[in-house]
Amino acid sequence: MTYFSTINKINFEGAKSTNPLAFKFYNPSEKIGDKTMEEYLRFGVAYWHTFTADLSDPFGAGTADRPWDKFSGLDLAKARVEAAFEFFEKLGVPYYCFHDADIAPEGSNLRETYKNLDIIVAMLKDYMKDSKTKLLWNTANNFSHPRFVHGAASSNHADVFAYSAAKVKKGLEIGKELGAENYVFWGGREGYETLLNTDMKLEMDNLARLFHLAVDYAKEIGFDAQFLIEPKPKEPTSHQYDFDVASGYAFLQNYDLQNHFKFNIEANHATLAGHTFEHELRYARIHGMLGSVDANQGHPLLGWDTDEFPTDLYSTTLAMYEIIKNGGLGSGGLNFDAKVRRGSFEPEDLFHAHIAGMDSFAVGLKIAQKLIDDNVLDGVVQDRYKTFTEGIGLDIVQGNTDLKKLEDHALGLSEIKLESGKLERIKAKINQYLLTFYAGE
Amino acid sequence: MTYFSTINKINFEGAKSTNPLAFKFYNPSEKIGDKTMEEYLRFGVAYWHTFTADLSDPFGAGTADRPWDKFSGLDLAKARVEAAFEFFEKLGVPYYCFHDADIAPEGSNLRETYKNLDIIVAMLKDYMKDSKTKLLWNTANNFSHPRFVHGAASSNHADVFAYSAAKVKKGLEIGKELGAENYVFWGGREGYETLLNTDMKLEMDNLARLFHLAVDYAKEIGFDAQFLIEPKPKEPTSHQYDFDVASGYAFLQNYDLQNHFKFNIEANHATLAGHTFEHELRYARIHGMLGSVDANQGHPLLGWDTDEFPTDLYSTTLAMYEIIKNGGLGSGGLNFDAKVRRGSFEPEDLFHAHIAGMDSFAVGLKIAQKLIDDNVLDGVVQDRYKTFTEGIGLDIVQGNTDLKKLEDHALGLSEIKLESGKLERIKAKINQYLLTFYAGE
Amino acid sequence: MTYFSTINKINFEGAKSTNPLAFKFYNPSEKIGDKTMEEYLRFGVAYWHTFTADLSDPFGAGTADRPWDKFSGLDLAKARVEAAFEFFEKLGVPYYCFHDADIAPEGSNLRETYKNLDIIVAMLKDYMKDSKTKLLWNTANNFSHPRFVHGAASSNHADVFAYSAAKVKKGLEIGKELGAENYVFWGGREGYETLLNTDMKLEMDNLARLFHLAVDYAKEIGFDAQFLIEPKPKEPTSHQYDFDVASGYAFLQNYDLQNHFKFNIEANHATLAGHTFEHELRYARIHGMLGSVDANQGHPLLGWDTDEFPTDLYSTTLAMYEIIKNGGLGSGGLNFDAKVRRGSFEPEDLFHAHIAGMDSFAVGLKIAQKLIDDNVLDGVVQDRYKTFTEGIGLDIVQGNTDLKKLEDHALGLSEIKLESGKLERIKAKINQYLLTFYAGE
Amino acid sequence: MTYFSTINKINFEGAKSTNPLAFKFYNPSEKIGDKTMEEYLRFGVAYWHTFTADLSDPFGAGTADRPWDKFSGLDLAKARVEAAFEFFEKLGVPYYCFHDADIAPEGSNLRETYKNLDIIVAMLKDYMKDSKTKLLWNTANNFSHPRFVHGAASSNHADVFAYSAAKVKKGLEIGKELGAENYVFWGGREGYETLLNTDMKLEMDNLARLFHLAVDYAKEIGFDAQFLIEPKPKEPTSHQYDFDVASGYAFLQNYDLQNHFKFNIEANHATLAGHTFEHELRYARIHGMLGSVDANQGHPLLGWDTDEFPTDLYSTTLAMYEIIKNGGLGSGGLNFDAKVRRGSFEPEDLFHAHIAGMDSFAVGLKIAQKLIDDNVLDGVVQDRYKTFTEGIGLDIVQGNTDLKKLEDHALGLSEIKLESGKLERIKAKINQYLLTFYAGE
Repeated sequence: MTYFSTINKINFEGAKSTNPLAFKFYNPSEKIGDKTMEEYLRFGVAYWHTFTADLSDPFGAGTADRPWDKFSGLDLAKARVEAAFEFFEKLGVPYYCFHDADIAPEGSNLRETYKNLDIIVAMLKDYMKDSKTKLLWNTANNFSHPRFVHGAASSNHADVFAYSAAKVKKGLEIGKELGAENYVFWGGREGYETLLNTDMKLEMDNLARLFHLAVDYAKEIGFDAQFLIEPKPKEPTSHQYDFDVASGYAFLQNYDLQNHFKFNIEANHATLAGHTFEHELRYARIHGMLGSVDANQGHPLLGWDTDEFPTDLYSTTLAMYEIIKNGGLGSGGLNFDAKVRRGSFEPEDLFHAHIAGMDSFAVGLKIAQKLIDDNVLDGVVQDRYKTFTEGIGLDIVQGNTDLKKLEDHALGLSEIKLESGKLERIKAKINQYLLTFYAGE
Repeated sequence: MTYFSTINKINFEGAKSTNPLAFKFYNPSEKIGDKTMEEYLRFGVAYWHTFTADLSDPFGAGTADRPWDKFSGLDLAKARVEAAFEFFEKLGVPYYCFHDADIAPEGSNLRETYKNLDIIVAMLKDYMKDSKTKLLWNTANNFSHPRFVHGAASSNHADVFAYSAAKVKKGLEIGKELGAENYVFWGGREGYETLLNTDMKLEMDNLARLFHLAVDYAKEIGFDAQFLIEPKPKEPTSHQYDFDVASGYAFLQNYDLQNHFKFNIEANHATLAGHTFEHELRYARIHGMLGSVDANQGHPLLGWDTDEFPTDLYSTTLAMYEIIKNGGLGSGGLNFDAKVRRGSFEPEDLFHAHIAGMDSFAVGLKIAQKLIDDNVLDGVVQDRYKTFTEGIGLDIVQGNTDLKKLEDHALGLSEIKLESGKLERIKAKINQYLLTFYAGE
Repeated sequence: MTYFSTINKINFEGAKSTNPLAFKFYNPSEKIGDKTMEEYLRFGVAYWHTFTADLSDPFGAGTADRPWDKFSGLDLAKARVEAAFEFFEKLGVPYYCFHDADIAPEGSNLRETYKNLDIIVAMLKDYMKDSKTKLLWNTANNFSHPRFVHGAASSNHADVFAYSAAKVKKGLEIGKELGAENYVFWGGREGYETLLNTDMKLEMDNLARLFHLAVDYAKEIGFDAQFLIEPKPKEPTSHQYDFDVASGYAFLQNYDLQNHFKFNIEANHATLAGHTFEHELRYARIHGMLGSVDANQGHPLLGWDTDEFPTDLYSTTLAMYEIIKNGGLGSGGLNFDAKVRRGSFEPEDLFHAHIAGMDSFAVGLKIAQKLIDDNVLDGVVQDRYKTFTEGIGLDIVQGNTDLKKLEDHALGLSEIKLESGKLERIKAKINQYLLTFYAGE
Repeated sequence: MTYFSTINKINFEGAKSTNPLAFKFYNPSEKIGDKTMEEYLRFGVAYWHTFTADLSDPFGAGTADRPWDKFSGLDLAKARVEAAFEFFEKLGVPYYCFHDADIAPEGSNLRETYKNLDIIVAMLKDYMKDSKTKLLWNTANNFSHPRFVHGAASSNHADVFAYSAAKVKKGLEIGKELGAENYVFWGGREGYETLLNTDMKLEMDNLARLFHLAVDYAKEIGFDAQFLIEPKPKEPTSHQYDFDVASGYAFLQNYDLQNHFKFNIEANHATLAGHTFEHELRYARIHGMLGSVDANQGHPLLGWDTDEFPTDLYSTTLAMYEIIKNGGLGSGGLNFDAKVRRGSFEPEDLFHAHIAGMDSFAVGLKIAQKLIDDNVLDGVVQDRYKTFTEGIGLDIVQGNTDLKKLEDHALGLSEIKLESGKLERIKAKINQYLLTFYAGE
């Protein structure tokens, strides 16, 4: 059967197409610098938002109209696999991502859950043989079940730690089985509701213990995916231990895990933490820790994770600027951890939303590359910091100085001549690139 | 003398110019719908940010390099007038706006302050004779001086009320003298630091009393400018009485002032209050209360009024959509209540920043008009609400129904067939307009 | 059967009790000023949080351990009634509140839903005969079902308006049947996801139309409960039309509804809107619009409605100060629109949480009354505003002045002598009252 | 002369005093556990807020009435020293803190600034001989002067780095001269306005370089104060590099500075970063990095650093809980980085505000100690985590396990029996301690 019967394969027709189900700007084989667009834009579909979620919210039941919802139990899980690969093919998307709980129902005990997973994993493997779509990453959902109410690896109960560990073990095996290129940890419950009843040190120690055990086991079974931590400051907890990239990096260094992990950075998590998306990407990049991206956007006036499809071209441009500077994302990709709005409940909206996101990142990539080619931002930076390339500045960066020498220098200064940071000019320039890029082609 | 010696008049050359000091998109005489661009975009320069402010912030002294700062006292005030009109002419801007305290120094008593004001007002009037730049609005600064520490019209001290009233009276006379098209009230201290020592009712009553007195006096002297209230939720106070447009509208209705006032809506104040800029514009528009605009933008991650020059094209497009739907701003305009960043301290940055803002609103106007011409958003709305144009829907909007009839109708319904709100598609469409507008011309 | 088998009736033993299931500070018959504690503190239990909700959140399934969950369908609804009245009696709470959807399951059509409601309403009425617990208010849940995805009275579809109206009609009839003292409107979906596809004016007009129809029908059936609007700025919508008390008041005035409605003010909604709880109470009070209270508290660092049980004594004290000044809440009460934390999933936690909330408001009441008796805050206010009781100040408040007279007065002033607002002293004083109140008894 | 002529020395009279200028709860010699109150509460007065600041804000001129403001230049600096020591003595405060720029005016060049500093430092040293008040810490103000507009150690200009380094060198010498127990770095401009023109890596590298140079020089001159970093997320910058304790800890580890620095944690900076004050203290404590505290509080609804005097007893109690658990603050203290409100402009308010803060922390200390003595929170924690003291839990914390063993354990589990986190009960308990502590004495 077909689940998206009214949808044919999306055309890659470029900006001139008037077909609402065609890409306007995304063209996988187009060259961007020394790569193709698809080499930079390793897009992934998030199984949970697109095939499992029902668009419920805390104040209302699900609205999603999904043709596979006539099934239930394992049949539903199987129908979702069918629908997923139909969707992947029609959209032409190279990757997908899932939590264990997205693809198969939990059984009445762990053994039964494993059995359900095995059935669906085999089916996924089978479908992947005939598909161009690969597994960007998988992960264990160690947050939805009530057993994780007080945490998973950071639970106050040892049995829950063990249960979480078992699910991670199974996840690593599934990842290996399906050729996942990364393995992700998002600690939805790895934080606290309140410090008043929380042993923060034990919880953080235990979280690190699980990470070490996972690293060891992956090595043991020869699963060489990149491990990724996905920071989020809060929600559902009041405070999550991997609040942002910097706090995650502090944690990894403190527990000697920094060589085994990189970060999976989500735009909406960045803004909830008080950072721009590009800040988190930049911080990770300059520390050699930029692994992958959860491509979405938040609503700047709402205080929860809205997980909107990314359409803000300022944001996609600055994100792609960081990714180009990083030489791409390596084994990582751009996973659409994004959900159609509750009011966008028709199956077709799933296509429109992904097209909107893919086109927005395609535009971002092209404009970022043009900004680099034209030396727009880099030129500003080179000019601004030029005093560090000679004289006292060079001494500073080369470590050939001390406070006395610097004081001598400072005492000899009359006035320091600074120049404007020119932010308004730079912003106007970026607008000009956005507005005239396609006119100029 | 000239204050902006390196700057010649800005050219209106449109998008093809590569001169950084030329407009790229603003072209005053260009036709947009049934108006010219300059009829819609009645831009104003904010005297305080551009000629008076020094770019200090709470953690640092002023950085601004301003050629007129070699003067002091009344000479400085005069030099600012000269600089202002040179700036207005070079920029080709049709309006400016000021607080009394921006243009002339306070004297040691009110009489002396009046004298200083009279000198500068006469000078402004003289300069305006030879200038195309008119006064969009003026206002009384009833917030900076220590006497306003506990409020102005809402002060706990009657003398401060009287002082504030006197400054408003003088402001109305100055507005009349200089042909101001509007008169603005921004109640920077009209709120409270804490409720613990505040008589909120008396303070709001007194605020309304001053507004009524101002209305009466303007009538008495034949000053027919539009009165405007500029809402802001907080800062410097913890809570300002005119928090947003809705609370201002509640106030005006409660004190029977709604026919004498409209709103001056500032983008950054909107977001500080938890609203989008376009929300405030829409709310004011549909209540017939949209008077004028303080054109700037805030930083979505910062909790204070950053007053940035507006460059976000999404925001300028949606703002201009509302303004076009309003049939323009009437006697109002787009005042750049915006300051160059502290790091953009060179005189030339004042030009770059205004050009960035004017170009951004010009683009917003053009794209908004094209969205209207192509029936993009309006078509969506007409289609979505079509059930209210016939049958039970028409009965509802015409008032021909009651709860019993509606219940009868509801009891006869089987399933209500709703359609997707299509938000992702609409956002993608707006991106396409932004990206291809100039390509398509 | 009993649902709370381990819990006996809570004792009102006062502060010295060490029994964790006794009230420490709440004592219903204690005199506070000219009323008893129970006359001021008309506490209500929220049916939805306490008997219907399962403590799920957007990232996890329900955790609540509820003895009645072994039932399903109408049997579950009936079991909840039994459990509720057992709970009310053991807790000694005078009121409860519900949405239609809390008490009975929706049927496959409206007629069937009505039938379910009728069964449970009859059962509630029966139980209320033998109970001291009365119905503070009821309301229609016009937000959870997918039909309300685009709004209820503000839906884009006329059938949804009709459906919503029918549910309100039924709600008014149920309220009358059960002797509800108020009828509440919380417009969970009466707002928008985005302005891009929204006809804000039609939606607000329609919302007002439903309110007028409800007023008319209540009059027709002789249901004289107080109508209440419960403002909330956002969530689940991006923007709700009754953002806060002020915007609700603007709406009511604009549609000539201000004499038929008051406000039901929720603490957590206040803070989400950028106001303190006491601000919203004060604003409503001085406009004669304070109707009832949803007693809870939010987490100051989280951007969603956490609906915590109220335990912050600063907040309960300042809230009760406003309520005492209002002469009590009239037909309104203090409804615990509060949920136990997801981690507090045991049945006993329901008691602990309500006791915590009731004790906190009892303390707030006692300390607020003492602050009033000792003229602490009122004395500050009287002293601060004394200039408005004579001379020019009296002229101002009596309307015997104009801008010219005020200018004359101001021109004659030398220096205005202001006094400190003394906020730090006032805060220290409030702390002293909190800390020594029970020592001083 | 005397500057606080109306104020006599504050009495330590305990809770029963009705004198507004007496401590109600602070009693330095009172025993708390194994220390005295003054050993735990090493209070410091912030020179800048109390003697230098004028209570101006971005919208208004200073309101502060300070008897020493009749002086100017170096005379003003000297008068402030006199006033400060008079204040310290009357208040009975053991410490003070300053930035270089607080105590002496900048000269026209660095050499002149040094000269001014030398004069005042000599005077301070002289006054300290006869005073019990010591220097808790000093620091260099590398943020107020326009030269720091683009950063100090993270400036884009090498001369500014040198200038900053010279000021730090001088600061270390001054600290040594005056016996400072700590040396603080608050990087007010060490961040960015925008990433668009910023070389984040070079800036962070340079910041680390300055820290290493400072460590080396302190060692060279035998200045053994504790180095402290004071995190703040933003303001005045859009983003500061030491956003919070975790990001600071990441930075210190990354640059191998973690053994030379601890953190100076400010309550208001914590909340601006999205953390509770107690979170930041806890995080620092369990990582061995809790050095000192800037004792103030923010306004939960305002998005800037309000620096209020700390009066929230919940916050002071939880803060002191962490500090007691830390064994006190070592060489650190509780510096009131707090300013009287703009409306509290009388000299006497300085006393009232400090008394309010000192009393609030005294109460916090006493209640925290009582909670510890009664095993209230610790008992909850011990009970909650007991599964980690035996069996599989003990294996986990001792590292005697792997994913296979954990999976075996998990496969053998039927249901995991979790218990409620009891947050509502805990909060009620804390309220009981607050309310009855002084009754119970």
